[in-house]
Amino acid sequence: MSQPPEPDVAADRAEPGEVPALALIAAGTLASFARLADDAAHSPELRTRIVLSRMAAADLAPLDRVEQRLAEIGPDAEAVDDEIWEFREVLAEYDQRTTPRDWWERLVRTYVGYGVVSDLEVTLAGGLVGESEAVAQEALGSVGLTDYLVATLRPVIDSDPQLAARLALWGRRVVGEAIGIASRLLQAHPELAALAGITGDGVARLTPDQLAPVLNHLTAEHSRRMGRLGLTA
Amino acid sequence: MSQPPEPDVAADRAEPGEVPALALIAAGTLASFARLADDAAHSPELRTRIVLSRMAAADLAPLDRVEQRLAEIGPDAEAVDDEIWEFREVLAEYDQRTTPRDWWERLVRTYVGYGVVSDLEVTLAGGLVGESEAVAQEALGSVGLTDYLVATLRPVIDSDPQLAARLALWGRRVVGEAIGIASRLLQAHPELAALAGITGDGVARLTPDQLAPVLNHLTAEHSRRMGRLGLTA
Repeated sequence: MSQPPEPDVAADRAEPGEVPALALIAAGTLASFARLADDAAHSPELRTRIVLSRMAAADLAPLDRVEQRLAEIGPDAEAVDDEIWEFREVLAEYDQRTTPRDWWERLVRTYVGYGVVSDLEVTLAGGLVGESEAVAQEALGSVGLTDYLVATLRPVIDSDPQLAARLALWGRRVVGEAIGIASRLLQAHPELAALAGITGDGVARLTPDQLAPVLNHLTAEHSRRMGRLGLTA
Repeated sequence: MSQPPEPDVAADRAEPGEVPALALIAAGTLASFARLADDAAHSPELRTRIVLSRMAAADLAPLDRVEQRLAEIGPDAEAVDDEIWEFREVLAEYDQRTTPRDWWERLVRTYVGYGVVSDLEVTLAGGLVGESEAVAQEALGSVGLTDYLVATLRPVIDSDPQLAARLALWGRRVVGEAIGIASRLLQAHPELAALAGITGDGVARLTPDQLAPVLNHLTAEHSRRMGRLGLTA
């Protein structure tokens, strides 16, 4: 006689990295909501304020499904909440360490930070499978923010070389913070790095050299995005 | 022979006060979104942050329909935008003039400000008719914020008499600002006061005495709300 089938609950056992990856996406959603809402509150005029407020709200929508999936696979609700909260603190460092001097630096900060975190999350989502992958992909679906920021920033940059030079410098400064945060996240959570195909010896901390494939990818995508603004990364 | 019927466009001609009332509701939506998002960003823990972020997003949803109605009846898009922007500045004074010292004062500020502005808007909506009234009613449909804040604040207030005393004082201070703003709005926009049934001589500025029926109503509703927190207004 064959073995009885595994109970259904086995289908909901989390793969390694699955819970932290979804917790990171949940934290990213909250961080992005807060940043866009804050940008909206600083908008110099009404239409921008409305657009950014709406994008903030839209960015939050997929959180429902991420939370639902975490409830299905998570160890327990409190542990999952602690993990989301911890990621939120790490992501918040980006905004704390980069104070924009004007509206344009603020928009570039959002453009760069949103881009790097999204790229990191896409990379991690690529290591997920099944329902968690589907949930992650939905959460990472763009709300049109990147295109909107390009359309807003590009004409200003094209018409003001002095501002363009300043924003190029600023872009280098803020992407340094963003990549630094990505690097620290992966070092502190080797199970996330493993989703991106990077494994160490399981004992020593992952080195920047070992993380290079991911960090180089994030940097290359950032350069491409700066190119869309007409800036050299 | 009878007169030809009025052209259809007449149906979309704005009644007095209709445009400013909807512009005020649009501005209130944006102000409330910004305040709740800012509260969410200051939350001491994850669940509160998620709830307040979601309520902020939900609060913004009816803006679509308000904007659409304004486009139908408004004089021109730019004039309407200017009016919303001006109301936004007046409403923002509430937050600028009231800096909470801790999380509980912050929640009471939101509770009081949201309550007074909602009550003012409900009063004005009562003077609208047809589609504009329907749009206003939908926008003023509660997202459950008041109940949530009562459920959050009441146990803390009941268990800490010293905090209760401080929050009662704070409530008096912030409601003073809120009622002051309502009063200035009605004085600067007699067509709004008219929606609430208050008309002056059309020349002199409305006096606080003339505005008393509305301001007394706002104060009475505020007292009732403070009672729900276990505080004396």
